Amino acid sequence: MLTLILAESALETIPKKLWKHPVVKRYSEKCGKLPKFLLLDRSYHHTAIKSLKGNEKRGRPDIVHFALLEALSSPLNKERLLQVYVHTINDYVITVNPQVRLPKNYNRFIGLMEQLFEFRKIPPTGPPLLTLTHETLPHLLQKIKPTFVLALTRKGEPHTLEQAVAKISDEEKTVVMIGGFPHGHFSTKTLKLVNETVSIDLEMLETWTVTSRVIYEYERAISLPKKRLRELTVERKTS
Amino acid sequence: MLTLILAESALETIPKKLWKHPVVKRYSEKCGKLPKFLLLDRSYHHTAIKSLKGNEKRGRPDIVHFALLEALSSPLNKERLLQVYVHTINDYVITVNPQVRLPKNYNRFIGLMEQLFEFRKIPPTGPPLLTLTHETLPHLLQKIKPTFVLALTRKGEPHTLEQAVAKISDEEKTVVMIGGFPHGHFSTKTLKLVNETVSIDLEMLETWTVTSRVIYEYERAISLPKKRLRELTVERKTS
Repeated sequence: MLTLILAESALETIPKKLWKHPVVKRYSEKCGKLPKFLLLDRSYHHTAIKSLKGNEKRGRPDIVHFALLEALSSPLNKERLLQVYVHTINDYVITVNPQVRLPKNYNRFIGLMEQLFEFRKIPPTGPPLLTLTHETLPHLLQKIKPTFVLALTRKGEPHTLEQAVAKISDEEKTVVMIGGFPHGHFSTKTLKLVNETVSIDLEMLETWTVTSRVIYEYERAISLPKKRLRELTVERKTS
Repeated sequence: MLTLILAESALETIPKKLWKHPVVKRYSEKCGKLPKFLLLDRSYHHTAIKSLKGNEKRGRPDIVHFALLEALSSPLNKERLLQVYVHTINDYVITVNPQVRLPKNYNRFIGLMEQLFEFRKIPPTGPPLLTLTHETLPHLLQKIKPTFVLALTRKGEPHTLEQAVAKISDEEKTVVMIGGFPHGHFSTKTLKLVNETVSIDLEMLETWTVTSRVIYEYERAISLPKKRLRELTVERKTS
């Protein structure tokens, strides 16, 4: 079982400080929603976002979108061997039900995330597919109780992903942390929670690329591709 | 060197047959563009698209978007060892310059593709980053002159991706074909162009997942992760 945390992710509603910014006001009118119910998005609020603290790590909901699509459509997730959490830059945590089918369309995904920030639960009634809680990363880890926490970061020790995953695949409960932001690094606060940091490439890789590769490498480490192909062979013989 | 073709991709402008459909007319007015300059998108033209032939394979530009982002941000591409072509369901071919930086934002990507279908070249003047030509798959392959063509499809022989890639990584010029559509299979016409078909999983995988995994497995086969990590180690020692 692998637990993946997209940490310090660039996903948040438009902060109060920007509600009166002309760019945000125009965007809010166009969407017909108050700014507090809208997601911050660098594509649309570029000039406004510049005045925010740590702005290079903020306003990129597309990163969470792609990374979640990669994670949820993986064979590992289909086998129910993956649990994903999205931790945001402002200490919200989205618990992702492995069975959720996220919209592939970006604009619909944004609408869904805005609903989630408003109602804290999707769907609002019945068993939740997405849940939003105000929660720090240390608190989330206390709940998960991992036996090992690996963070992938440009500042880590150089190891191939194969080496890094070989080490964790024997662990009882591993958490892999991937940054859900476009630039910069994990905060010192986050790095204190980690057993090991690893850099898997010479350059910074996109969050969705790392997500996809970690999951695939983990599948390989537990021989999932071979197992599933055996099932395919049996399926074909009997049909 | 790996050549990737996203084949029969669900990327096209709105076909003439739908220009007068109420859903398309409303969408066209909202966008302020004539339907012939707009991309067909199932998210917005769902009721209109149903009347099209083979509609289950059409109107999903997000698939090409994600798959290209995965491909272009890979270390393989950064090393200039990857060439990507997008072949569409209507026999257009997009030649992707490995150095292009595509918009991460979906709406901007759509805008860019609409420009590409209108002007056939991006940017319209100077060295092209994206080129659109009216071209069949056999014609594209004649130009590429591959020594081996591998297609990944649910109907292929069951092999792990590792096995499939091990076989092609020694080839002088390999083409890997991945379907750029959401459902269904390659056409018989396409399958005739292929040396081998392989199924890498029990279930259908998303185009972007297959793209990401093929590239990563190819990188592994040519020991690129190790090579790049050696460079990282040298970089750190000397800085």
